[in-house]
Amino acid sequence: MRFTSEQRLGDGLLEREFTLGGIPGILWTPASASAPVPLILLGHPPLGLCKMYPRLVARARHSAAEGFATATIELPGSGDRPRWPVVEQARADLRRAMEAGEPVSGEIVDALVLPLVDKAVPEWQAALDVLLSLPEIGGPVGYSGGVISIGIRLAVVEPRIMAAGLFAGSFVPRAMFEEARQVTVPLHVLLQWDDEGNDRQAALDLFDAFGSKEKSLHAHMGGHTGVPQFAGEAAARFFTRHLK
Amino acid sequence: MRFTSEQRLGDGLLEREFTLGGIPGILWTPASASAPVPLILLGHPPLGLCKMYPRLVARARHSAAEGFATATIELPGSGDRPRWPVVEQARADLRRAMEAGEPVSGEIVDALVLPLVDKAVPEWQAALDVLLSLPEIGGPVGYSGGVISIGIRLAVVEPRIMAAGLFAGSFVPRAMFEEARQVTVPLHVLLQWDDEGNDRQAALDLFDAFGSKEKSLHAHMGGHTGVPQFAGEAAARFFTRHLK
Repeated sequence: MRFTSEQRLGDGLLEREFTLGGIPGILWTPASASAPVPLILLGHPPLGLCKMYPRLVARARHSAAEGFATATIELPGSGDRPRWPVVEQARADLRRAMEAGEPVSGEIVDALVLPLVDKAVPEWQAALDVLLSLPEIGGPVGYSGGVISIGIRLAVVEPRIMAAGLFAGSFVPRAMFEEARQVTVPLHVLLQWDDEGNDRQAALDLFDAFGSKEKSLHAHMGGHTGVPQFAGEAAARFFTRHLK
Repeated sequence: MRFTSEQRLGDGLLEREFTLGGIPGILWTPASASAPVPLILLGHPPLGLCKMYPRLVARARHSAAEGFATATIELPGSGDRPRWPVVEQARADLRRAMEAGEPVSGEIVDALVLPLVDKAVPEWQAALDVLLSLPEIGGPVGYSGGVISIGIRLAVVEPRIMAAGLFAGSFVPRAMFEEARQVTVPLHVLLQWDDEGNDRQAALDLFDAFGSKEKSLHAHMGGHTGVPQFAGEAAARFFTRHLK
């Protein structure tokens, strides 16, 4: 891991950009922390870190106020990373189906999400190895946000993830429902009740499928980007309960 | 309204029992309040105030810590109030159907719930008239808990109710779905995902039906009485957002 920039933001937040094996990432830590702090990995949709930055830094700022470090990495095929023809093709197929008002087939969803999960999860794990070796990061570790399938796979294969706050706002391949049954860490699932691009019943079925003994579903009114501010505060309290 | 007892409990909570037109009730106020405080009506199932007391006083204590007065009254046909043959018959029919493993018919649900709503709602409104005339109670007013159909009707017909935290844990007559569409106040709906006596899909349909622009569904694992403590804290924050 190589830090490429360091900047002190307002509210006592230290932001450091890094690269790790050619993958860009950002680490935010509470500047005032005197002891190692727990870490929340900030998941996000594959739109590129630049486009997601304003929302990510807002989440980082809230998390830092609660005493958490946060970190994120660029997803394969997004932002400054090399384009990825297999996923670009699936995105084009998805756009075409949605513009034609057709149902989005399981094949399109599989082609869109499964390669992303397979490639991204080991990258998040590699980032975790390095982040946890920093003296200012302790543990435990949580995963927060979307892509929900990445969160599911990480929760299953990565024993250092102790709690996950997942956003049920993206297409989920059928195969991920089986993996969801294997998730046992505490879960806090957000659902936007009128999410345009999301199948509400599939999200409810997925929530039902999770194997976790403690899981909560918080559904709020509005579309994909309309998550109310108090929902973010509730998610923060979830992580405070489980990672502190 | 006639106060029949007054008791200072721990945590600065003043408990006063009262009767109003022959209906027993309890009022809890934060003993330390120097100005009139908002009021939350505590709904509860028709099991009698004595049986419900431990849970009610716990809710009253949490609410008082947030600066709320709380009050509740006995439901028709429950506790020390005269028995009510029409509802007793419906309860017997319900028990018989459930013990026989039969589906609970719409007729049984209607007979069980609709008379209770028709009779209880004006009683809650009469209690509200008197409670709001006390110098220590200001407003605004919220309704919290079950019977969810009583909460729905109150939210529709009683303009002084400014927010409702409803427990989707009881049978809901089909006619109440139409009333739910007329609800416009902010809603916070609790659902126990594995509630034995409750139809999860009906609860989700009911949540969808509510006309409120701000409504949140919080679903947690476990059965009817397994609402986790952090769910109560989230409900308290909902009332603080809307009644303060």
